Amino acid sequence: MPVFSKEEYAQRVKRTKEAMQEKGIDLLVVSQPANMNYLTGYDGWSFYVHQCVLVYLQQEEPMWIGRGMDANGARITTFLSEDSIREYADYYVHSTERHPMNFVADVIREKGWDKGTIGVEMDQFYFTHRAYLELEKDLPEAKFTDGNVLVNWVRVVKSDQEIEMMKRAGMIAVKVMDAAIKNINVGVRECDAAAEIVHAEYKGAGEFAGDYPAIVPLMMAGEATKTPHLTWSEKVYQQDEAVLLELTGAYRHYHAPIARTIFLGKEPPKLMKDTAEVVMDGL
Amino acid sequence: MPVFSKEEYAQRVKRTKEAMQEKGIDLLVVSQPANMNYLTGYDGWSFYVHQCVLVYLQQEEPMWIGRGMDANGARITTFLSEDSIREYADYYVHSTERHPMNFVADVIREKGWDKGTIGVEMDQFYFTHRAYLELEKDLPEAKFTDGNVLVNWVRVVKSDQEIEMMKRAGMIAVKVMDAAIKNINVGVRECDAAAEIVHAEYKGAGEFAGDYPAIVPLMMAGEATKTPHLTWSEKVYQQDEAVLLELTGAYRHYHAPIARTIFLGKEPPKLMKDTAEVVMDGL
Repeated sequence: MPVFSKEEYAQRVKRTKEAMQEKGIDLLVVSQPANMNYLTGYDGWSFYVHQCVLVYLQQEEPMWIGRGMDANGARITTFLSEDSIREYADYYVHSTERHPMNFVADVIREKGWDKGTIGVEMDQFYFTHRAYLELEKDLPEAKFTDGNVLVNWVRVVKSDQEIEMMKRAGMIAVKVMDAAIKNINVGVRECDAAAEIVHAEYKGAGEFAGDYPAIVPLMMAGEATKTPHLTWSEKVYQQDEAVLLELTGAYRHYHAPIARTIFLGKEPPKLMKDTAEVVMDGL
Repeated sequence: MPVFSKEEYAQRVKRTKEAMQEKGIDLLVVSQPANMNYLTGYDGWSFYVHQCVLVYLQQEEPMWIGRGMDANGARITTFLSEDSIREYADYYVHSTERHPMNFVADVIREKGWDKGTIGVEMDQFYFTHRAYLELEKDLPEAKFTDGNVLVNWVRVVKSDQEIEMMKRAGMIAVKVMDAAIKNINVGVRECDAAAEIVHAEYKGAGEFAGDYPAIVPLMMAGEATKTPHLTWSEKVYQQDEAVLLELTGAYRHYHAPIARTIFLGKEPPKLMKDTAEVVMDGL
């Protein structure tokens, strides 16, 4: 069930270890869900609790650590061996007495990985200040350093298999934008248009199932065009409104974002037309 | 455009300040998007960059701080006065030289709020370790303490207006579960069923627009029923499969979650039927 071949994941881990060596990191704690997925294939809607992937220079395989109920998800979506899937009990979840990072630290000590330099993703959401404090307290022999976007930079160079995923996402993105243009009309409620757009996102294109994207459909109209990140409501689209569309198709978490502006009327105002021309010149 | 009355937000801020006083917190830095929304009404898909709401004991109004492009979103979705909407420039975003919390610290010093005890949400995603380090470095006169679930506990007691929102979310949840039961059938692709479910989530119920929920439709079938958090694919539902459904309706961010298990066949296995009865007895 992992999306890519075992060799592809091995390559990713190898390149990550090279980047770790350059930065003098012996053990990398990867908390960002997309980075965890990239290194192991792990794919679950479980990132609302603490979880991580450990990459240790001297160990071939990365290790997944997460909540007990998600360990079977790791068994299904990764190639990891049983020793590389570690699960913590529910009494670590939202406890005032224990923290999941206490369990992570226990595993790190068990493996003897606590003597060197540990890199953590210091400015990624999903690695909280508390997570750091618990690791620091439990691993007094370790030196901590920032490995914040280390895996993200490894991810920048895409493999052929990944580019194929992005092309499929692109096919979905076309369907999504078509659904937006077809369904956003004067008198239509924003929520009804949003429903058609997200329907296209999840359904996908032909044989390729759509995935849940990292953004909801952004489709600001009228007053809301002053700002980029408002979402829809019961409001009805009006004559001569501009509608900003920030949409995407996603396939196996690979995204193909697309942005367009549409105008609900015979002809857009001169300023809008001129701006469009300037933007196209710029592109 | 704020969803609730000015008085309702004032009540929420008042109760938050009471909780702050109990914990000896002079200034609370609220980073969790739902908490920011609760205190001010701020509503934008902007939480992928650092942002926060400051609550200072001696200041009536909370203060929103976010990225420049989102400040108009704050003007549209909150009652805050102009001095309470502060925006940082894009050169703070994903910079290796500056951090948004440097800007937040500048505002805190400008206001003279840096001499007392500052509470931060130490174990909420959206408040990173780096965010803490930057505040600590820039505010040497402050004492920091954990205000982690302070606002979450204030939110636990719902107002009549909020309960009305939850009822509307419940009406939507019924439509969502109906869409799941109607569309999940032997021979149907998971992604096509997911598309119908999310369509119901966004469309809403009658006059009430659906909102984007905090979870995607969770609808594990077959092998995937061993674990709770896998998402859909092109896979086709099989005869005699059980399907776990964890769904929700959402209205103005208020959720009404609902979970059910369906069985795609004439009769579920005895173990499943017995388990259902035991669960119902337990409830």
